[in-house]
Amino acid sequence: MKKYIKLYRDALLKDVIPFWEKYSIDYNSGGYFSCLDRFGNVYDEDKFMWPQARQAWVFSMLYNKVKKKREWLKIAKNGIDFIKNHGMTNDGDFYFSVAKNGVPLIQPYNIFSDCFAAMAFSQYAVASGDESVKQLAVQTYFNILKKQNNPKGAYEKSTGNRSLKSFALPMILSNLVLELEQFLDKDEVEKMIDTSINDIMTIFLDKESGLIYEFVKPDGSLENSFNGRLINPGHGIEAMWFMIDIGVRRNDIDLINKATSTIIRILEYSWDDKYDGIFYFMDAKGKPPQQLEWDQKLWWVHLESLVALSKAYLHTNRKDVWDWFEKVHDYSWKHFSDPKNGEWFGYLNRQGEVLLDMKGGKWKGCFHVPRAMYQCWKTFENI
Amino acid sequence: MKKYIKLYRDALLKDVIPFWEKYSIDYNSGGYFSCLDRFGNVYDEDKFMWPQARQAWVFSMLYNKVKKKREWLKIAKNGIDFIKNHGMTNDGDFYFSVAKNGVPLIQPYNIFSDCFAAMAFSQYAVASGDESVKQLAVQTYFNILKKQNNPKGAYEKSTGNRSLKSFALPMILSNLVLELEQFLDKDEVEKMIDTSINDIMTIFLDKESGLIYEFVKPDGSLENSFNGRLINPGHGIEAMWFMIDIGVRRNDIDLINKATSTIIRILEYSWDDKYDGIFYFMDAKGKPPQQLEWDQKLWWVHLESLVALSKAYLHTNRKDVWDWFEKVHDYSWKHFSDPKNGEWFGYLNRQGEVLLDMKGGKWKGCFHVPRAMYQCWKTFENI
Repeated sequence: MKKYIKLYRDALLKDVIPFWEKYSIDYNSGGYFSCLDRFGNVYDEDKFMWPQARQAWVFSMLYNKVKKKREWLKIAKNGIDFIKNHGMTNDGDFYFSVAKNGVPLIQPYNIFSDCFAAMAFSQYAVASGDESVKQLAVQTYFNILKKQNNPKGAYEKSTGNRSLKSFALPMILSNLVLELEQFLDKDEVEKMIDTSINDIMTIFLDKESGLIYEFVKPDGSLENSFNGRLINPGHGIEAMWFMIDIGVRRNDIDLINKATSTIIRILEYSWDDKYDGIFYFMDAKGKPPQQLEWDQKLWWVHLESLVALSKAYLHTNRKDVWDWFEKVHDYSWKHFSDPKNGEWFGYLNRQGEVLLDMKGGKWKGCFHVPRAMYQCWKTFENI
Repeated sequence: MKKYIKLYRDALLKDVIPFWEKYSIDYNSGGYFSCLDRFGNVYDEDKFMWPQARQAWVFSMLYNKVKKKREWLKIAKNGIDFIKNHGMTNDGDFYFSVAKNGVPLIQPYNIFSDCFAAMAFSQYAVASGDESVKQLAVQTYFNILKKQNNPKGAYEKSTGNRSLKSFALPMILSNLVLELEQFLDKDEVEKMIDTSINDIMTIFLDKESGLIYEFVKPDGSLENSFNGRLINPGHGIEAMWFMIDIGVRRNDIDLINKATSTIIRILEYSWDDKYDGIFYFMDAKGKPPQQLEWDQKLWWVHLESLVALSKAYLHTNRKDVWDWFEKVHDYSWKHFSDPKNGEWFGYLNRQGEVLLDMKGGKWKGCFHVPRAMYQCWKTFENI
């Protein structure tokens, strides 16, 4: 395991973090540039709240868990201040994007901006001891809960005649509640964990196929429509490592075993036997998916699989889990990493060739790569 | 030219139209199924207003321009009645989608549903002489004009702090006004044509690059952002044959020549020298586009190019135009057509392999293939 410890730790501390430290920090206007080309040059200056919040979370987390480096805290603060000053509305919602100087561009239609902001505030409150940021974290968390049954608000285009429940929200809440644990009431935490486990492992995890569906009917049954048939393998696998974390916390071996089996089942279902790699989207009935990008290979899908597999192996010692880890590991490092220029590519075509050679954009920022490197490093230290 | 006349006419009348006649008509609930797999089997029963309206337009147009077949009028009526009874709100807006039985699913957030409905109503009013449908066509046209400065209404996510004008609307209006010509005031028609020519050929057509931009600032200047850099080659080329039609109508040789040069310029810019075919999206500054599907080859892009090139050749007799026609023709028939099962595939990967093997879906229906076959057939008869 020594080889893996060194590989993931060095990638985090000597490649990925230095890349973002060097190229992404906007000390003039505040916040971060996330649109970086393969060399780290900024190619677009707009600031999207997903990568703003996620990068502030990463640097706060590193400060809390890896090393008390003043530089990391300063970088985290640069993002937190920008989000507080320019990312929030008076109602405590979060814009989707703002201009370089903070002028709001896209309205808060997306509740995940709020989720990532709450995570960032919480980690930063721990790192800095800033009481006002702690209050913001808690306030944002409860604002998310208030909106959870209508996350898009006035921007919801569905008539409501055939509502579907989305997997994304219980999935992220299962992680968010642990992120905010120290600032929440113990009962609130346990209640949310119970709800999450039930939603994810009973409602969205389909017994018959063993797969996680992205959308189900309000009564939990499946719907035969584009959204109702949608499988997002990376989402399902990522949620399974959140479940393993909860299983460890509760010493719930059954939950860990069930999550592990689900990881393997999803991987078997979504692995591309022709060109290797994990598909981005699939249709549970094999119909044509509406996502034109369905066959592409995305960085986060593979990184979350590595985290999930390493954790599953730590707790189950299953040989098939290890074999899958090595398979995904080999594919990922061969195709996504860019040791010459730093960080990972994000988007490959089905054949495994780089489709977009940027290191960051509207959605990809400083998050999945460093979080996965950290998680794998620490998991291997425990194996 | 005889070979091309026969090829495009036979494809229309012996392949494409029979395919939709055989598989798509829902005489039980009304309207059409657009989600058809490669063999014509229905794989999803939801009804999307884009393909509903476009198919009603195609069958009305065939009745008006090709042959007075009672069956075609009946098929058109089946769609028109469904749109009237289930596709419209009380305000005269059009849902994006409804269920098989007409229950509304997705709200009217998309003004193009209205544009295609107006086209369908107009062609059907001509075909049937139905006065109430004629009224609907005119009413829908003016409702579109009323909404044109805020086409998404309450669903607009932009804050308005950095508004951009979209090319799609003037482009479609330049075609729509000719579709409705017989039912509109002469002054209204000429005014709209003047506005469209100016918008398209002066504002969105960039002098320096010779390319059509998808979005410009309100003052017509370019913006350095994802949307501001976006080039949609198929859109630009399609608009150029609308301009040629207007040029013919007005006997404006300069407009025809300028449109022809723009077609060639866009093709040179967006042709994939490695695998052939026309890219779906490009970034004018060569930055990574935000559309993950940017390198795919889409049926409508190639078909609209064939229409544009055939019309440009008819009116200019330029050899380079003819060479481009043959190049796009050869690529398209080789990769998109499916003589064994009928109709064309819609979505190829960059390499030209079929990415989604359906014949119709949420966006692809009975429209671009038959319209292009008809247009090329008729154009070749005039060459």
